[in-house]
Amino acid sequence: MTEYKLALVGFGGVNRALAQLIAERNEQWKTELGFTLKIVGLTDLFLGSVIGREGLDANVLAQLPAVKGALAQLSGGDVTALNEAVIKDCGADIIVEATFTNPVDGEPATSFCRWALEGGQHVVTTNKGPIALHGAELKALARRKHVAFEYEGSVMSGTPVIRLARQALAGSSIVGFEGVLNGTSNFVLTSMEGGLGFAEAVSKAQELGYAEADPTADVEGHDVRLKVVILANELLDAKLTVSDVTCSGISSLSLGDIEKARQDGARWKLIGSAMRHADGSISASVEPRLLNNDHPLASVGGATNAVSFTSELLGAVTVSGPGAGRTETAFALLSDIISIHQSIARNQE
Amino acid sequence: MTEYKLALVGFGGVNRALAQLIAERNEQWKTELGFTLKIVGLTDLFLGSVIGREGLDANVLAQLPAVKGALAQLSGGDVTALNEAVIKDCGADIIVEATFTNPVDGEPATSFCRWALEGGQHVVTTNKGPIALHGAELKALARRKHVAFEYEGSVMSGTPVIRLARQALAGSSIVGFEGVLNGTSNFVLTSMEGGLGFAEAVSKAQELGYAEADPTADVEGHDVRLKVVILANELLDAKLTVSDVTCSGISSLSLGDIEKARQDGARWKLIGSAMRHADGSISASVEPRLLNNDHPLASVGGATNAVSFTSELLGAVTVSGPGAGRTETAFALLSDIISIHQSIARNQE
Repeated sequence: MTEYKLALVGFGGVNRALAQLIAERNEQWKTELGFTLKIVGLTDLFLGSVIGREGLDANVLAQLPAVKGALAQLSGGDVTALNEAVIKDCGADIIVEATFTNPVDGEPATSFCRWALEGGQHVVTTNKGPIALHGAELKALARRKHVAFEYEGSVMSGTPVIRLARQALAGSSIVGFEGVLNGTSNFVLTSMEGGLGFAEAVSKAQELGYAEADPTADVEGHDVRLKVVILANELLDAKLTVSDVTCSGISSLSLGDIEKARQDGARWKLIGSAMRHADGSISASVEPRLLNNDHPLASVGGATNAVSFTSELLGAVTVSGPGAGRTETAFALLSDIISIHQSIARNQE
Repeated sequence: MTEYKLALVGFGGVNRALAQLIAERNEQWKTELGFTLKIVGLTDLFLGSVIGREGLDANVLAQLPAVKGALAQLSGGDVTALNEAVIKDCGADIIVEATFTNPVDGEPATSFCRWALEGGQHVVTTNKGPIALHGAELKALARRKHVAFEYEGSVMSGTPVIRLARQALAGSSIVGFEGVLNGTSNFVLTSMEGGLGFAEAVSKAQELGYAEADPTADVEGHDVRLKVVILANELLDAKLTVSDVTCSGISSLSLGDIEKARQDGARWKLIGSAMRHADGSISASVEPRLLNNDHPLASVGGATNAVSFTSELLGAVTVSGPGAGRTETAFALLSDIISIHQSIARNQE
């Protein structure tokens, strides 16, 4: 039986949900997936860090009180986040990176990924920063070191948009995509269709926990822009940087605009998209678009996300599902680990 | 460079579209997919058959006049469909089965698949009959012979519903699915929402080529029932036969029902579904269902198909796309061949 040793970097909701899944499902995975997971290290800015080379109790970790330095209470624990020690010295096969996204320079997550890959460890991450800002470098490093670098959860949480396009649509010749890629802004637009003004709709999203105290990154399209870079580089083999993607948000839309669209049988959506043109060039944007009600993305409501791929052989294929959520995003990490397992199994055959 | 030799069984629109793709894209596939395809045999009830072990010209085949016995004009051709000779003797690595679906006993397609698998050849098919009626036997035979048996195109043409669920949703613990799986009946319902009566809507579908002269299999749910059996057995590890799936169609729906639904913010859809219950039992049905407008399948209009999977870790993930079309279905065959190539590459590493 294959067992993978994990180091969890960042222990917010996502990696905590992964620990919970490990506590509940390891036995089931043994037969269903052909492997089990063991947590051998954990580091978190707030909680501190712990190394346990023989395996830490996933259930204890999942139930850890949200108290500063709480990991110091465990055997092998420290009040400080000893990131480098945990990544490099705890003997993990796979580094599970789920810290916050830094949209400016992708740090410190990018350094975490780099340390791990340089040390010959596989990396799975849900973090948009390292992929959108340093994806080409990190992918090349992973190839050079013959390890995996997987990031399904960086776009649409566990809804398998990257793997769908890369595996199941292989050979279809994808030429572009359009997506509803930010649940907060889509929730705001859906609320405005129900009659709320922009500011009220944002307040409602904040009350429900969909929007941050500062909603700028969501409603002005900055979050979507990172996802467009990730998808375009992955699926269209583009070499985009963030500044290549034109970006405007939804804050300029009025209730009048929304109502006028309704009367015309259409809806406003914040659309992130990229397209390969006949000359091989690729353009990409984030902008509010007026979609007719029969457009495959028009009916994507509330906090749901969706991407519609256009390919030469299939026309439009659309996948929709959760774009956030702790367990849903933890599934993305599991899905990445399954992919690593399959590729290791291939190389051992 | 890997080259796969194909025998095409049945030469209606789908295999003809595949021949066209081979004629146009073989060079591109060499770099993009790592293999090329060569047609070494073809057999069709109407056109006759031909064997060309050194390779037949895909472009000539794609342009073949639709004249009875036309293949006899080619070198190595015969006015008769010498199915057994083509499958067993033309030296094909992969048999590409795309004959008509026989919903009663799955013949003659099932025998074609069986001959090929028994002879150690891979089989790809778009045919619902062999999978829905004899899937367990044929899958077991393929495993025993260490060859592949792939059938992405048997449900939703090239929209990758089977591969999405099997690969990208692996580990999510799928517990059920609901689908809009028949383009004709969905087109009829969408037309009725536009004010046409049932009979008028069926006539319109026939005029546009969506519906057969006898629309029974589409509008009474028999076509969907086969697809429910295929998906349930594939994704829920069910052991369903066709008679396990309760089935009622849309012919009993009146314009009044459709209008009443509209007033209530809902829509009627013909839904094929299956669900695993807490006790492990699986129930499956085909029936018209009233879906609220915010249901992920409510907005699937016209001839589009969609499936919504429910899983323990992700909730609902929905994929929509073409459910028919010659090139779209030919892509399903290509996608199956890509999958075979990957599994062969794995075994050779």
